[in-house]
Amino acid sequence: MDAIEKIKFDENGLIGAIAQDFSTGEVLMFAWMNAKSLALTIEKKQAVYYSRSRKKLWFKGEKSGHTQLIKEIYTDCDSDIILLKVEQTGGIACHTGRKSCFFNQLQNDSWTVATEVLKDPKDIYG
Amino acid sequence: MDAIEKIKFDENGLIGAIAQDFSTGEVLMFAWMNAKSLALTIEKKQAVYYSRSRKKLWFKGEKSGHTQLIKEIYTDCDSDIILLKVEQTGGIACHTGRKSCFFNQLQNDSWTVATEVLKDPKDIYG
Repeated sequence: MDAIEKIKFDENGLIGAIAQDFSTGEVLMFAWMNAKSLALTIEKKQAVYYSRSRKKLWFKGEKSGHTQLIKEIYTDCDSDIILLKVEQTGGIACHTGRKSCFFNQLQNDSWTVATEVLKDPKDIYG
Repeated sequence: MDAIEKIKFDENGLIGAIAQDFSTGEVLMFAWMNAKSLALTIEKKQAVYYSRSRKKLWFKGEKSGHTQLIKEIYTDCDSDIILLKVEQTGGIACHTGRKSCFFNQLQNDSWTVATEVLKDPKDIYG
């Protein structure tokens, strides 16, 4: 794909990807992609990341059902970060059962949990 | 600072930071921070990044005047990405003179410029 050839992957063959709720603008999560996962994301119109810990493709939502349907894809002025605007299935992107992974807010020099758990992870992952 | 000790910097001592417009939710840019730049960001309530190419602190807006005033700071479930909610001075975050760095939109397998230049970079940087 031409689009992927323009992308600047890092020395590990990866690029960071920000997932943002298409409707509300809320930033949901940040994960990594390799060329294969970006190609699959474009092809399937569903977010596919690359898990650095598991060293394999990560089909977002394959266990939880919390897939991310792609509405728009952007890259930045350096072509070295991806922004996905997504429809978040189930309204939960985070493995903690929260909508967004960015739930730790800095307040008075400590990180305070700012948003609630919408679904118990035990009920998400069994 | 306690807050910084909780953060997981990568093997290069860096953490990725997403800057988001506090009012509109628009994702403005992605850059890197080291512990010193994060501490300065918290202390000065203005975004301070770390430039990997120049290998030094990057006081956002020091040349352009396009500083980012910090409204809220978050980290994610793994404490390995920062989200800054900012008030973008001048309404321009990108060195190309656009509001956001994420102006290349994927359309039919090619990246299309989706937003306009608000100010000529020559007029920003002289």
